[in-house]
Amino acid sequence: MNSFLKATGFTHFLLEKFLRSGEIVIDATVGNGYDTLFLAQAVGASGLVYAFDIQENALQKTKILLEKNNCLQQVNLIHDGHEKISQYVREPVAAIIYNLGYLPGGNKEIITKGETTLLSLQQGMELLRSGGIISLIVYPGHPGGKKEADLLEQYLTSLSPRIWQVMKWSRVNGDRVKAPCFLCLHKS
Amino acid sequence: MNSFLKATGFTHFLLEKFLRSGEIVIDATVGNGYDTLFLAQAVGASGLVYAFDIQENALQKTKILLEKNNCLQQVNLIHDGHEKISQYVREPVAAIIYNLGYLPGGNKEIITKGETTLLSLQQGMELLRSGGIISLIVYPGHPGGKKEADLLEQYLTSLSPRIWQVMKWSRVNGDRVKAPCFLCLHKS
Repeated sequence: MNSFLKATGFTHFLLEKFLRSGEIVIDATVGNGYDTLFLAQAVGASGLVYAFDIQENALQKTKILLEKNNCLQQVNLIHDGHEKISQYVREPVAAIIYNLGYLPGGNKEIITKGETTLLSLQQGMELLRSGGIISLIVYPGHPGGKKEADLLEQYLTSLSPRIWQVMKWSRVNGDRVKAPCFLCLHKS
Repeated sequence: MNSFLKATGFTHFLLEKFLRSGEIVIDATVGNGYDTLFLAQAVGASGLVYAFDIQENALQKTKILLEKNNCLQQVNLIHDGHEKISQYVREPVAAIIYNLGYLPGGNKEIITKGETTLLSLQQGMELLRSGGIISLIVYPGHPGGKKEADLLEQYLTSLSPRIWQVMKWSRVNGDRVKAPCFLCLHKS
């Protein structure tokens, strides 16, 4: 399978079109840190990445990854839940990445939940500048994942197309039920 | 709306990742010629584009567009239906573009039909080389369009994921029923 056709590779492929050096962005779910690194490299040393995770070990590993790639200086690692974004970020942002579910290789019982993800997303939508983009990867395959995916999609379906363009990148054949799906919100 | 988030702009955005100079590709539905021009520029003077349309005026306008852009030499304009692709093309191709429905600005009663599109697609799938990509834009908004979209998606859903990765780019909010949708098939 071509990696960038997958939901995860697709995020970077799409966001590259929107990100410029010097911008302020958010990684709402640090996890293994690959999205944080991608954002840090995209905005460069003159930019700023706010990066949230509730798991200390995720932040520690990400710190090492960023140091190795000379990107730590432009990242603000925050040990808190992403439903508190607006307590930490008070300026317009160009992009926000959500990679939901559990930490790969970590405790699979610690998962993002639809209610808190939605709270976070609504704050993120307020913070997003015009022309900005929010991406979400949702995983319907694990316990609780389907519920989160349904709640999010129900909410996104209701958004006014005058302000929000919401698009979805999803699998058509094979195991559609378990395949991750990519959602993005573009603000007019 | 950001133009490349639309199904039409999205085709070029995605296919740019797959096309290299010197390759052989197919535009199965010339229409206004914008996809033909895109393909001709992507494969360059050392490449070859087979371009099909059943409407002579579509081919005439496209010929002028290609001449203006110094791309006519690498395009083989064919006045025939795309369900006869395999009569004209006998070598492996890297990409095929379908932009279904009717000719913009033309006779809206001359539309592509699910049955012939499917015949063409199956021939195209045989011709496609490993690692190649087929893109389809379907328009459920016009009479007959929904039927064609349903037929195609039903067929694509049944394809083996060991050979084919089929993905869809679709609108989540606003007028989802009428919005065009982008489908792509990647061959392993």
